[in-house]
Order: sequence, then structure tokens, then C-alpha cells
Amino acid sequence: MAHGRISRLSVHDVRFPTSLSGHGSDAMHTDPDYSAAYVIIETDAEDGLKGYGITFTLGKGTEVVVCAVNALAQQVLHKDLSDIVGDFRGFYRQLTSDGQLRWLGPEKGVVHLATAAILNAVWDLWAKQEGKPLWKLLVDMDPQMLLSCIDFRYITDVLTEKDAYEILKKGQLGKKEREEQMLRHGYPAYTTSCAWLGYSDSTLKQLCAAALKDGWTRFKVKVGADLQDDIRRCRLLRDMIGPEKTLMMDANQCWDVPEAVEWMAKLAEFKPLWIEEPTSPDDILGHAAISKCHNRVIFKQLLQANALQFLQIDSCRLGSVNENLSVLLMAKKFGIPVCPHAGGVGLCELVQHLIIFDYISVSASLQNRMCEYVDHLHEHFKYPVVIKHASYLPPKDAGYSTEMKEESVKKHQYPDGEVWKKLLVAQDLCVQP
Amino acid sequence: MAHGRISRLSVHDVRFPTSLSGHGSDAMHTDPDYSAAYVIIETDAEDGLKGYGITFTLGKGTEVVVCAVNALAQQVLHKDLSDIVGDFRGFYRQLTSDGQLRWLGPEKGVVHLATAAILNAVWDLWAKQEGKPLWKLLVDMDPQMLLSCIDFRYITDVLTEKDAYEILKKGQLGKKEREEQMLRHGYPAYTTSCAWLGYSDSTLKQLCAAALKDGWTRFKVKVGADLQDDIRRCRLLRDMIGPEKTLMMDANQCWDVPEAVEWMAKLAEFKPLWIEEPTSPDDILGHAAISKCHNRVIFKQLLQANALQFLQIDSCRLGSVNENLSVLLMAKKFGIPVCPHAGGVGLCELVQHLIIFDYISVSASLQNRMCEYVDHLHEHFKYPVVIKHASYLPPKDAGYSTEMKEESVKKHQYPDGEVWKKLLVAQDLCVQP
Repeated sequence: MAHGRISRLSVHDVRFPTSLSGHGSDAMHTDPDYSAAYVIIETDAEDGLKGYGITFTLGKGTEVVVCAVNALAQQVLHKDLSDIVGDFRGFYRQLTSDGQLRWLGPEKGVVHLATAAILNAVWDLWAKQEGKPLWKLLVDMDPQMLLSCIDFRYITDVLTEKDAYEILKKGQLGKKEREEQMLRHGYPAYTTSCAWLGYSDSTLKQLCAAALKDGWTRFKVKVGADLQDDIRRCRLLRDMIGPEKTLMMDANQCWDVPEAVEWMAKLAEFKPLWIEEPTSPDDILGHAAISKCHNRVIFKQLLQANALQFLQIDSCRLGSVNENLSVLLMAKKFGIPVCPHAGGVGLCELVQHLIIFDYISVSASLQNRMCEYVDHLHEHFKYPVVIKHASYLPPKDAGYSTEMKEESVKKHQYPDGEVWKKLLVAQDLCVQP
Repeated sequence: MAHGRISRLSVHDVRFPTSLSGHGSDAMHTDPDYSAAYVIIETDAEDGLKGYGITFTLGKGTEVVVCAVNALAQQVLHKDLSDIVGDFRGFYRQLTSDGQLRWLGPEKGVVHLATAAILNAVWDLWAKQEGKPLWKLLVDMDPQMLLSCIDFRYITDVLTEKDAYEILKKGQLGKKEREEQMLRHGYPAYTTSCAWLGYSDSTLKQLCAAALKDGWTRFKVKVGADLQDDIRRCRLLRDMIGPEKTLMMDANQCWDVPEAVEWMAKLAEFKPLWIEEPTSPDDILGHAAISKCHNRVIFKQLLQANALQFLQIDSCRLGSVNENLSVLLMAKKFGIPVCPHAGGVGLCELVQHLIIFDYISVSASLQNRMCEYVDHLHEHFKYPVVIKHASYLPPKDAGYSTEMKEESVKKHQYPDGEVWKKLLVAQDLCVQP
């Protein structure tokens, strides 16, 4: 049972200097430093359990998200956890619809990232108190209770609470078998680690060879900066993996609509399964394939407009488990496969819970489904993902796998952690005459 | 000629305690304290001119926008103003597409509000250096130069640079006459000051009577919190203004789509010209009438989807003059009248420049067009709007009318200004036993 009064909320600006080696680089984000606003929630309960939540950022501006978390903190402090989860819909609404703060969004950008970090920490704490990994907490939860976590505002024209209930009810059938299957085989994954845009061809070859050896059969490549480069890199990859394995492409929002059509025609020979984020994430009508979105209202329309063939949820851009639940249910209603966005720092750790729950309790299908995997920064987590035969094995530890190692947080705090102190001194030396 | 190197950028958190008297209250924003992140740009030029820019907020969270302005400041500092405006498209792109910072948006929420505040200051400074009010700077600007201020990314599928050039070329015809007309008669306005949701019926009556006496013929009323209240207030207003004058309604995003349809059916007897923001601002497909949006990509789709009959630009939510230009041009292409959003603090001062430019150089029409007016907080501006016969008279002072009185800024800084010190002390006293 959820218990304890929230007595403290602290937030840390944690950054990893990934740009030094080109990890994570794509057409629009050429030099990301994978970072997080990292929230820790404490209660006055005697169990001493803490909730950890993150939202993912790319370095600069993490301090803005930290500032937004602090602005939202007063809505959380001194509340009983049982009151929060007992009326989670009301709490979600309050957090996202404060009469003054909602002007800064609503439910988008910095405030929504901050909302995700806080709610991720609440879910982690709740799951820890229940002694279950988050996916299992969701799987075991009564459908009515699950629904009470979702704010249906703005989506009732395509999904009512009654629709959602029917879906969850149907999802009970065969649940046990699917849970066992997950525990045995895990959830299918694909890898994005081989082909960041900033990697040289030789790095790409080397990483691809290693991934093939490890049993990977699905690969994603970043495209969109230079057509000739794209052709060369896609050919190289397709040649290495052969005609049967799966290749996806990601343009990370770099094209206009006509440009996307033209460019993709030239990459079609490499037979991509999808092209991800061809244009602005706000452009519902311009979308053709797959999209990461910032809230359930955008996802709703992409589904209504038949604008996507695959749907990517995100554990840190949407409003935590609560909002992702509504998107999983809408995807089920429209029969669109969900292939979560992951990578960054912690995104794999978090989103595996959601997609494993989705398989067991909502979609009940693996057809055309797989979860992104990126092999960076897992060593900083206390409960890192376990990948076996290119699949995510369900986490066994209680919580949402959000907790980072204390030492890692300390070292990578910006700008005062040891890692950054050294780097910033080095930078200063470089710009001096 | 633009000149000088930007030597300093400072930003202030300025808040007005409007919630104390219910000004600005609506169904979603019940207690706004009209506020601004207020940017001041200084250069090393000898003229000593400064650029002032604001973005509008509702109180809480203004510090988050201030934090975002500081994150963006390094992109502006030490640049020559002539380099900025000489490649304004490039500068806009740089500000909105930084590889790390764009993750926080892109072009939405807190970072886009911060972008607007900074760019508004740049435009104010440029206009001051040219010795012209901003609308006149735009009107006199060569079409090619105007286009070089616009980032066409993500909108070329509906508006190419060539399309935009044709529109501006055609707009040259009759320009002089329209400018004279504006100087004589001003731009038609409507008032939102009478009918905030938090006002009592007697306040509403009194304000409406005064507005009628002042010659107002177009009125907006806030709706959406309680149907019976709405019916009573709308009847009261319609009875007072008579059947011929214009009434608009604004639900400020409070409904789901089916709810909006049902509710509006019950208010239809009061013959509203439009219903504003019936649902989520992200819901393009759900929109029926009129919408404020956060960027040009959302506006583009509302136009493509025939989802609006009126279009509301905003001087502080969009990326300043640059992005508003692209939206004005798209609206012209689709033949949709633009009726700007104003009010708040400073929005009237700023947006009048854009809509007067639009009439003179782009739309060349006043049919179905009017600019919102709200009678609050103008006394804090150095160059406040001038309303005559319910019309905006074109500003004559150089700049973008963004500059606030030094004394006002000082008094209303949060939390250390005199006004807030007193209020916060009073609040503390209230919560003590």
C-alpha cells in the first residue's frame, strides 16, 4: 500500500559528455551531451524508500528543466503518497493544469519534461513500496484503478473511459501466458548504437559486425544531413546485414515535407521498414510514417489522420506512465503497433516497463513490434537493463529502474561534478591565448 | 542602419498581482497574475539605445522563462546587430535549432517564449536605430529583405519563398493609401475587458455600459466553466449590446471535442461570431473555429485542414516578428482573416504593429478583421497604445512599444520589488496561526 508523506523533493542537473565521442549524433542534434534532470522524492515513512525520476535532455538547458521541476515541486510536497495515487487522475490534472503554470505549455516542452521527471519518481516510489517492478505493478493492477490514473481530457472523441475499460478487460485473457513468455524470452529489441551520424565508416562497420555477432537482427541508421553520405552509409549497412534483416531510418525532423519525399525516394533501394521523424514533430498532416510526440493530443490526431504506421511512445517526453497509458490504449484501439523510443540516458531502463506491460495487458501482440535499444550509459544505473538474444528481459527489482548510482550522479553533476570541473578547466585553457 | 555589438543582455521577472481583482480570469486560468519575462539588450554603440523585449506569462513559472532566456543569451551576446539582421533567417534558425537546446522544444513552450522575448528586444532595438515604429520599419522594408527574416523550414509545402514574394509584391499596390487610412482611422479593435469569468454580474454590467458609451461595438466574453452561468452572462451581454453588435466567446481550451459541440449548441442563441479555443491548442483536427497556436507549423495545418475561420497571431508566443510574418503570409494565401490575440501585459502594445503592417502590406483588407483590446496595465508602458473610436491608432514612437517604465519594473520585480514584498509579507501573516 502506498504510504508516507512527501517530505523532500530534490533535483539534480546530471550530464554525460557524450558529444566528445559522437554518441547520439544525428542530423539535427550534432553534439548532444546526454543528460537528465534527476528527481529524488523522500517521504516521512519509516521504510526509508525513495522515488527516483528522470527526464532526458541533451546538455545545455537542463538547468531550465531543473528550474521547472522546482516550480512544480510545491504541488507535490507535503502530500500523502496514498492521496496522490488514490486520485492519480486528479493529481495529474493538477500538476499539468495549474492556472498560472499551464501558460508555459500546456503539456509540452520544458514544463512537460519536468512533469515527467516528477511523475516518474512518484511511480518509482509507488512500485518500490509495493515491492514490484513497475511493469508488474501495472500488470497486476485492477483495470478500474489503471483507468483512474489517466486524464482523458482532450481525447474522449476517440477514446472514452468505457472504451479503455473494454480494452483492458479483453487484455485479461491469456495474460498469464504472456507474462511467462516475457519472463522467458523478453521483449524484442532493435539497436541504434551502430550508426550515429557522427560515427566514421570504420566505427560503423566495427559496431555493426559486433552487433551481428551478438545476435541483433534489426538496425536503425541516422540520415538526413547529406544525401551522398546517407547512400554510402545505408549501402554499407545493408550489405553487412544482408537483405533479410530489418533496417530503419531516422531523419530527426530535418526535412520539409517535399524534401522528405524526394530524399526518401533515393534511399528506398535500401528497403527501410520505416522513416522516423521526417519533418517537424508538430506537423500531423505532413507525417507519413512514424513519430515521437510530446503529448496524447498529438498522438490522437496522428492516429485519426492515419498519419503513422508505427507509434513511438517516450517515457520522459510524455507525462510519465499516466499519459503513456492513454496512448497505448489509443494505439490498441486503432490497431497501430507501438515501438518505443529509447536510448539517451535511462530511456531504455524506463520504457521497457511500459512496453512489457503493453504486451501482457493491452496489445497482446508482438507483430511488427520492437523496442529501441541503445548501448550507452547503462553502467550508471543501479538496475540496468538486461538484454539477451536481442531482447529486453523483464526487470525483477522493485521500482521503475530509474535510480542512478550515487557515485555517478555526484561525478556528473553540472557544473560542479568532478567530470565537468575537469572538462570546463580544459575548455578554459583552450580558449586562452 | 543597424549597428553596435551586443554587450549586455539582462532579464527581469516582472509580475502584476492581477489575480487580486479577477482581471484576466477564464475557465482554465482562474487566477492569473499577468507577468512578463522582460529582456533588455544593450550595445557598445554610442547612441546608447537599448532594445526591450517581453514575453507574456501568468505569474508562477516566469522564473523558468527567465532561466531559458539566460540559456539562450550566449547566442546573442557579442554579436553585431548588423550581422543579426543582415542574416535574420540564419540567426532565427540558430536560436531555435541549437543542437542541444532544441530538445526542450522545439519551438514550443518555455524555450519558444524565451526566444520571443529576446527577438522582440532585437526588433525593438533595430526599429529604434532606424528611428521608426516597428510597423513602419516593416512597411518600408524591401520585400526581399522582409523574406530574409523568415525561416521557411517546415512550411514550404504550403508557402515557398516565391509564393511569399508574390504576395508581398502585390501588397505594394495601394500601400500608400492604406497607410494614410491607418494613420487617420486606426485599426478596428474589439474589447475583452468587460467579461472576465471572475467578474460579478454587476461589474460586467457596469463595464459593458461604460464600453458602449466609449463607442465599442465588438465584445468578447469568457465561457466554459459553468453552462448556466454562461447562459446568464451571455444573455445579459447580448441584451445590453443589442442584436446588431458583435459578440465573441472564448473557452480557453476547457472542453473535449464532444463537450464543445454540445455546450456551444446551448450558447448558439446568443449568436457568437466565433468560439475561441474550444479544446486543446494541439488538437488541429478537433478545431472548429479559431485558435491561438504556438508555432507556424501548427498554424500551417489549421489552414490546410480548413480548421479555422479566423486566425489569431500572438506577438509573444510565436517567435517574434519573424515567425509572425510567415503566419501572416500563409493566412493571406489561404484567404483567412487574422484577428490578433492581445491583452495580458504588453500584448496590445506589440501586436498592433504587426496587424497594421499586415493591413498595409499583406492582407489589404479589413473585412472580418479586428484586433483584440484589453484595458489593463498600459500605464506601465513608456509608449502605451492609443485607442480612439474603438480603433488602434498607429504608434508614432520609434521601436516596438515594448519598453516599460523603469519605476514600474522596479516595483513589480518578483519577489524583491516593493509590491511583492508587501504582498508576500501579507500572505505570510495570513498563514500564521
